[in-house]
Amino acid sequence: MKNTTSFEIAKLCGVSRGTVYRALNNKPGIKPETKEKILRVANSLGYRPNFVAQSLVKKKTMTIGIIVFDLNNRIFSQIINSIESYGRKNNYFVYLTLSHKDSDLEKEQIQYLVDRQVDAIIMMSVNKGKEFEDFLKQFNIPIVTFGNKISENIPFVWINDKQAIKDAVSYLHNKKYTKIIYVCPQLGHLYTNENKYSPEQRLEGFIEALEELDDMNAEIVSTHDYLQTIHELVSHSSEKIAILCTSDIYALQVAKSLKKNNIKIPEDVGVMGFDNIDILEFTSPALTSISFSLEEIGRSLFNSIMHLINEEDAPKEILLDHNIIARESV
Amino acid sequence: MKNTTSFEIAKLCGVSRGTVYRALNNKPGIKPETKEKILRVANSLGYRPNFVAQSLVKKKTMTIGIIVFDLNNRIFSQIINSIESYGRKNNYFVYLTLSHKDSDLEKEQIQYLVDRQVDAIIMMSVNKGKEFEDFLKQFNIPIVTFGNKISENIPFVWINDKQAIKDAVSYLHNKKYTKIIYVCPQLGHLYTNENKYSPEQRLEGFIEALEELDDMNAEIVSTHDYLQTIHELVSHSSEKIAILCTSDIYALQVAKSLKKNNIKIPEDVGVMGFDNIDILEFTSPALTSISFSLEEIGRSLFNSIMHLINEEDAPKEILLDHNIIARESV
Repeated sequence: MKNTTSFEIAKLCGVSRGTVYRALNNKPGIKPETKEKILRVANSLGYRPNFVAQSLVKKKTMTIGIIVFDLNNRIFSQIINSIESYGRKNNYFVYLTLSHKDSDLEKEQIQYLVDRQVDAIIMMSVNKGKEFEDFLKQFNIPIVTFGNKISENIPFVWINDKQAIKDAVSYLHNKKYTKIIYVCPQLGHLYTNENKYSPEQRLEGFIEALEELDDMNAEIVSTHDYLQTIHELVSHSSEKIAILCTSDIYALQVAKSLKKNNIKIPEDVGVMGFDNIDILEFTSPALTSISFSLEEIGRSLFNSIMHLINEEDAPKEILLDHNIIARESV
Repeated sequence: MKNTTSFEIAKLCGVSRGTVYRALNNKPGIKPETKEKILRVANSLGYRPNFVAQSLVKKKTMTIGIIVFDLNNRIFSQIINSIESYGRKNNYFVYLTLSHKDSDLEKEQIQYLVDRQVDAIIMMSVNKGKEFEDFLKQFNIPIVTFGNKISENIPFVWINDKQAIKDAVSYLHNKKYTKIIYVCPQLGHLYTNENKYSPEQRLEGFIEALEELDDMNAEIVSTHDYLQTIHELVSHSSEKIAILCTSDIYALQVAKSLKKNNIKIPEDVGVMGFDNIDILEFTSPALTSISFSLEEIGRSLFNSIMHLINEEDAPKEILLDHNIIARESV
């Protein structure tokens, strides 16, 4: 397609390119009838602005870079779905990049997004610490994070992970469970350089909740072979046990494994998940889980980034609501 | 961050900007020692190319636009996951846009992606027909499609939908079912302007398969209240019935509804899905389904688009393998 230029429109309308610019960009200093004529001509010629050329002038590309681990995780796809929808309504386009939880790759992608002059970045980071914060600061570009907080200085949108787990423990306590096995394989070996803010907050919530309860025993399973460990714990116990997992996928794996060993849920052992992913209605048993709105998180991320792009302040931390969805598994 | 320019590098090295350009872009016509010096200086200054300015010169933005319905559908997220991974390895970035199955919005987004000068577009389209093909042609930009074919002239990567359904019918026939209820709510009212190439192909496969079998009865349910219709069909029949659904999500809805009415799967009625989505291992009963590799589809889409970007031919149609994953539901 041959692209109509503002030069051609100026020639056809017998006006200057400055006048065409004013008409097309809704600027003052132009007679209404001239403006109307220019817009009519531009429209009839199928004029489309050259965004790439414009972005050199305006210093805005109207694009937002997003960095997440991958799209296999429903949390990420649904948050991006939401950001894209709000972005589109505001003429922002989305550059999508995946870090695959690789800290070097993540840094490389930030660098690439900056090179491509995105106006802002929304990310769930693998990197953490002062050095990473300084790395980000050098680019002088608006950044908003979710899931894993990087610093008090970089706006963060998520839920109150600590309180969510406290609520779950209290819910299980009310259901008369006497022991909770807390399953958090994301934590793995605790002391790594990986940003594990969200799972760490949840673990802290679990420990704080237990400190307030005299009549609740607990085990923490943070290894990748958690199914094996759980079996040993469950088969050597006479307590009323609930297994609280930090993601639904772990909870579903646990439930599947228990069923295979003829352990009934919830009669013998209770199982509870986190995230309330959209297919829980089809699983057996229907899983009790902690729910929060990914659509809302996407909306808040987009709003915060708009504030920063417009050089306004954005809240340093927005923690959205969560709630427990009671189904059949506890 | 202040961006080091090629002008500064030229000054510091005492060479022309043309020489700097040759060094940074690996072009001939430069002495090895000069090149090495320029690269060392560029590196020490933290030089990063200005992609936006470059793309005006090179007429390439190294970006690919992707248009899908939404990211709630696992099929889309996993294909994009794959395209992004192959893209990244080849220095291509991905612009993601969602059409939400709105044909006007889809056209608008194609226009926007073209305005932003993406090098190519990969899409599953809602639009169809000669008029849409002409709409696309005017942009003179490489386009590869999947799922819903637009035309024999536009490269298409997918599976052989028709054969997949034929294989499913044959599988159910071998399992001694005497009647198949074919559930395809995507088709809705058959005569619309929406591109329903994939569901239409599947329906054709179903009809062709039946024509070859004398001893198989069938019903086609293409309405959105399919659960109600299925109940009536199942409760008034003494045949050995299998319900073949054109997506796992429908199959899971059907299974849930049958169980609620105390109809046993597969003892009373068989249920089979399509897509083999990744959570089927957790559903009850474990669903028999048709599987195909989304990773492979992403790879083929990326390869085809690279051919077109490099002005080589791309195959007009690539149909990848599918196979039946036998679980417990038929």
